[in-house]
Amino acid sequence: MSKHAIAIHGGAGTILKSQMTAEKEKEYKDGLLAALQAGYEILENGGTSIDAVEAAVVSLEDNPLFNAGKGSVFTHEGKHEMDAAIMNGQDLKAGAVAGVLHIKNPVKLARAVMDQSDNVLLVGEGAVAFAAKMHLQFEDEKYFFSQHRFDQLLEIQDKDSMQMDHSHKDMKNKIGTVGAVALDIHGNIAAGTSTGGMTNKRYGRAGDTPIIGAGTYANNKTCAISCTGVGEYFIRTVVAYDISCLMEYKGLSLEEACNEVVHKKLVALGGEGGLIAIDAEGNIQMPFNSEGMYRGMKKADGEYVVGIYK
Amino acid sequence: MSKHAIAIHGGAGTILKSQMTAEKEKEYKDGLLAALQAGYEILENGGTSIDAVEAAVVSLEDNPLFNAGKGSVFTHEGKHEMDAAIMNGQDLKAGAVAGVLHIKNPVKLARAVMDQSDNVLLVGEGAVAFAAKMHLQFEDEKYFFSQHRFDQLLEIQDKDSMQMDHSHKDMKNKIGTVGAVALDIHGNIAAGTSTGGMTNKRYGRAGDTPIIGAGTYANNKTCAISCTGVGEYFIRTVVAYDISCLMEYKGLSLEEACNEVVHKKLVALGGEGGLIAIDAEGNIQMPFNSEGMYRGMKKADGEYVVGIYK
Repeated sequence: MSKHAIAIHGGAGTILKSQMTAEKEKEYKDGLLAALQAGYEILENGGTSIDAVEAAVVSLEDNPLFNAGKGSVFTHEGKHEMDAAIMNGQDLKAGAVAGVLHIKNPVKLARAVMDQSDNVLLVGEGAVAFAAKMHLQFEDEKYFFSQHRFDQLLEIQDKDSMQMDHSHKDMKNKIGTVGAVALDIHGNIAAGTSTGGMTNKRYGRAGDTPIIGAGTYANNKTCAISCTGVGEYFIRTVVAYDISCLMEYKGLSLEEACNEVVHKKLVALGGEGGLIAIDAEGNIQMPFNSEGMYRGMKKADGEYVVGIYK
Repeated sequence: MSKHAIAIHGGAGTILKSQMTAEKEKEYKDGLLAALQAGYEILENGGTSIDAVEAAVVSLEDNPLFNAGKGSVFTHEGKHEMDAAIMNGQDLKAGAVAGVLHIKNPVKLARAVMDQSDNVLLVGEGAVAFAAKMHLQFEDEKYFFSQHRFDQLLEIQDKDSMQMDHSHKDMKNKIGTVGAVALDIHGNIAAGTSTGGMTNKRYGRAGDTPIIGAGTYANNKTCAISCTGVGEYFIRTVVAYDISCLMEYKGLSLEEACNEVVHKKLVALGGEGGLIAIDAEGNIQMPFNSEGMYRGMKKADGEYVVGIYK
């Protein structure tokens, strides 16, 4: 029997049930379910894990509740600079973009970099020019605008520091990144991640999302990973590839490797966040060291989870 | 006795003795020596490895023979978009920039990101704005212009592909990146890398240089690494952190780990290039799978090498 499966996340941070309304909770869960379903359908119909990952991330990008695509946070200058990456565990092909504006679905641009160029990482205006050449969909500032994100910016725009979700008391602010990992019926795994970054970010700051090995990684031999959290710590810890190496070189299981990195290494450095992970056997892990992480998974055997809190 | 030591590289590619004049060879060796000396002096006087690495890379950036800072290759649009990174093995702090124009010494900007910001990676115009805030030195296009680089661009500007050094027959073109790794008398290691990227690159392409874990990595527990080669393969292989993991998790020596990655893993994927590596014992490796690599090393015990060919 096929072990095809998918897992998704919609960001990690201080997500407290005490600050959530039943209505809001339902909106988030519905969004996660829709993304899970978009990816799972592709797997069930014999599609590839890379297509499933892209479809799930696109669904989360299009949902204004999550900080990626529509609903991305504002930079210090009031713009939306987005990052995304995608990687195929079958051949280690990867594509990523950093600091792109006006792109409706940054994960589609990352996919185009992987499939249609000789490159892995394109940044800034150049990446946007490549998107135009690839005829990807552009949107104006209005499309990306959302009032609660703008309020977040106004709240801290005069401060020098960026704001992570967990530094806010307000529930609306506790979301950071979206991502998906999947295993298809052909036995191939893939990972994809997309984000608007951190509110009030400046100076072209990019986090771990577009960094292959840090926020995104996939290798059939070990695992596919998509991270969410304070990107700087995830870059310095090379989180995604570290989990892969702990499995390949130290013989750890997916669960052991994820726990080692998320609950020990990241915590030791002060790095808050979480990740989703899948291996070629269809095992799934969704560890986080923050108060909560929007997450979901669905497996061929019927097992199915949508969660928010610890 | 202190084991302080430094290694540097000035790029890898098809560097053939048959195409080199004695005069040209001396120029390259003098450039390598000057950079070695700039870094080694700092180590000998009790300075830190991070300062030594920065000084050595600055020396190579300022030398028009090497593809970083002054002497950087031209993009498709006739500009100089540079990438750089630096990392401290003592505390895993890191800084990196991608796609920056007009910055005289991109490695100094990477250092400023590490020391003076909460971020690790800044890209494009935003990174340049940060450089202005940090009062780093700017230069106009004239400073970065060199005739042989411009000729390289004209030769291939009408083609859709970028050119790596090894795809040229002309000796002048065979250089790619610069970097340094060092161990100081305090027992700390560090790594730094800087590059103008590939001639005729487009769309904001960034290679492995600014990617912590791919082109640049340092960790006192294992090694400090700076890479040079076709960046896309180095990103997909997560080269620098892979060597670190092979040492930490599989118990390989620095030499074994370097050989595994440079001569097996990269070759299997088709990735050409090399790297320099140092561990906290002062062991140095400078492996490459290309025809040549501009390189040098100097140790406290008097051992000293400057090399170009296999």
